[in-house]
Amino acid sequence: MLTSTDGEARRGEFHTPHGVVQTPAFMPVGTQGAVKALRHDDLEALGVEIILGNTYHLYLRPGHERIAALGGLHQFIGWDRPILTDSGGYQVFSLADRRTISEEGADFQSHLDGSRHLLTPERAVDIQAHLGADIAMAFDECLAYPATHEAAADSMRRSLRWAVRCRRRFEEVRGGASSGVLATNPGQALFGIIQGGLYQDLRDESAEGTVALGFEGYAIGGLSVGEPNELMYQVTEATTRHLPAEQPRYLMGTGTPLDLVESVARGIDMFDCVMPTRHARNGQLFTSRGRVNIKNAKYADDDGPLDPACGCYTCQRHSRAYLRHLYMAGEMTASALNTLHNLTFYLDTMRGIRDAIAFRNFEIFRQEFVRSASAPSCD
Amino acid sequence: MLTSTDGEARRGEFHTPHGVVQTPAFMPVGTQGAVKALRHDDLEALGVEIILGNTYHLYLRPGHERIAALGGLHQFIGWDRPILTDSGGYQVFSLADRRTISEEGADFQSHLDGSRHLLTPERAVDIQAHLGADIAMAFDECLAYPATHEAAADSMRRSLRWAVRCRRRFEEVRGGASSGVLATNPGQALFGIIQGGLYQDLRDESAEGTVALGFEGYAIGGLSVGEPNELMYQVTEATTRHLPAEQPRYLMGTGTPLDLVESVARGIDMFDCVMPTRHARNGQLFTSRGRVNIKNAKYADDDGPLDPACGCYTCQRHSRAYLRHLYMAGEMTASALNTLHNLTFYLDTMRGIRDAIAFRNFEIFRQEFVRSASAPSCD
Repeated sequence: MLTSTDGEARRGEFHTPHGVVQTPAFMPVGTQGAVKALRHDDLEALGVEIILGNTYHLYLRPGHERIAALGGLHQFIGWDRPILTDSGGYQVFSLADRRTISEEGADFQSHLDGSRHLLTPERAVDIQAHLGADIAMAFDECLAYPATHEAAADSMRRSLRWAVRCRRRFEEVRGGASSGVLATNPGQALFGIIQGGLYQDLRDESAEGTVALGFEGYAIGGLSVGEPNELMYQVTEATTRHLPAEQPRYLMGTGTPLDLVESVARGIDMFDCVMPTRHARNGQLFTSRGRVNIKNAKYADDDGPLDPACGCYTCQRHSRAYLRHLYMAGEMTASALNTLHNLTFYLDTMRGIRDAIAFRNFEIFRQEFVRSASAPSCD
Repeated sequence: MLTSTDGEARRGEFHTPHGVVQTPAFMPVGTQGAVKALRHDDLEALGVEIILGNTYHLYLRPGHERIAALGGLHQFIGWDRPILTDSGGYQVFSLADRRTISEEGADFQSHLDGSRHLLTPERAVDIQAHLGADIAMAFDECLAYPATHEAAADSMRRSLRWAVRCRRRFEEVRGGASSGVLATNPGQALFGIIQGGLYQDLRDESAEGTVALGFEGYAIGGLSVGEPNELMYQVTEATTRHLPAEQPRYLMGTGTPLDLVESVARGIDMFDCVMPTRHARNGQLFTSRGRVNIKNAKYADDDGPLDPACGCYTCQRHSRAYLRHLYMAGEMTASALNTLHNLTFYLDTMRGIRDAIAFRNFEIFRQEFVRSASAPSCD
């Protein structure tokens, strides 16, 4: 539900069985049922309203049937707020061994124990029904970058055919027609995914075909895969035009804080990315004055806060010297403190975006943000 | 200051420049300036009143002079409550490479970069003055177990001679007579350490000699090194009899929860041990119903709390199935959740001990505790 707009930027609310998500929203990645280095109460204190779980990982370990028997993913991990699960496709393409793709689906070997698995559109829907996230994603093919127009077209059309099968299966499960599927969240939504690489004609075709199937929301997949930022922005901008105003729009796997702002300016409502959490564990920190590589020797005697403009626990309590020491000493606590900070930076950015749209000064906010993000790094 | 006693068990308060420590107390180990996997606010929420820092580690990295220049250890790590530092001796004997011991001190190579260092009684006092913990420890020789009476006697007498030098140096630094030493905590206390292996005549001699030097507290070192529990209890019991009633007594490096109860029964006031934190990271959890090895396959579908009698965040929020999953998946969050729980178990044990002494029913508490600790493990 949109509550206000400012240019293409949209301020809204997405209602789920586990509560409302204020959009534009950033979803921290909780791959295996936990956001790495944090506890759920940390996320709640940060104001995180929705997290993402990875179907591929949870399917392989501890298993979707076990999770369903334990009451579904929310119950299993002890998290009461909304969850989105991906379809598993992306990890099949990026992590699994010896995969073969056919019209039926993706056959692959587990990266954990080499066991063989077949993931089809129907099976991806069934597994996600077991998990019971508030938002499930259609199973699509992930195109390698760069790709020819022909390869991108073939892949996009296959994803579209798979989308038809996903939607059909989803309706069957919802209608109770699929015995053997233990759906743990009757109010689950299913989002379609628009593909087509960097070819706008293919994106247009994918968007029209996907929207015609009638999903509860629409994602743009296959971006943030190595293409220049400007191209990603262009495709995003041209693609969101095809999408119905009332449904949420999710740009998958993006991105830097600047990417978030620029994509909101092009009509995006939801994001997920491992960047804030993974960078945190590698000592790469986002601040209002640019990136900080906490390993840098110049921080060894720096008793100032990581980011003087930040209100997070890490910045309020600790110095750069201490954060550097913990990082160099290999202390897990470094990962926790750094992750708290980076997620705060992302969530503060989203709060700033939402307020700016509500007050109709998003363009000013954006220009300010671009200026500060373009400042030279602190290192 | 003792507030009540019950048999040999003592309830008291130890006043430091950073506040009061209720004794008997357990000190979580914050080796490199952080208790592994936790943040300081976690410790505060658990009711931790004092933590331990390791001089050997902090001396090598980030360096005591750097820490002093940044205002001392409290300021550097952002922890306002009491801290105790060990002398560095134990790690020199257990971690450092190619050490040679002489009357002067211990010459060793850093385990980090192979650099050579000489740690003497005077230098250990100076380094700890830089760090500025509320309690510093005398530099002693750590005896290998088992040891002959002759070796134990020689080592104990050397430690006693070193104690004289430590105390002298400590008084000089406190009096401002040691230029070049940046003492960051004018109210620092120095504890002496009683050695002598498992030979009670040597323990008696060490206790008398150490007490004669006049320390602010007394530690028993060289126990918990592999000897049978019963021997440790015997030596503890016979040694505390030599110690002045008004000063705190610290049993170094001990132990299991049962060891804490049994040692309090023999007049001990303070403990430190890596067991709750290290075991947590290895999935070994202490519960009111015995030990739990969370890796055990039988927990994979167990939706009950780790310990139904525990009020910690982990037990209130999560199931054994989830804790097992996080552990098996190698998630850092498992270490945080497990450490929170194990430390809660230790601190609850200490609270139970203190209350029991205050209400003069420590013996009943102890018998109950022995019974539940002797129950078969959950696995």
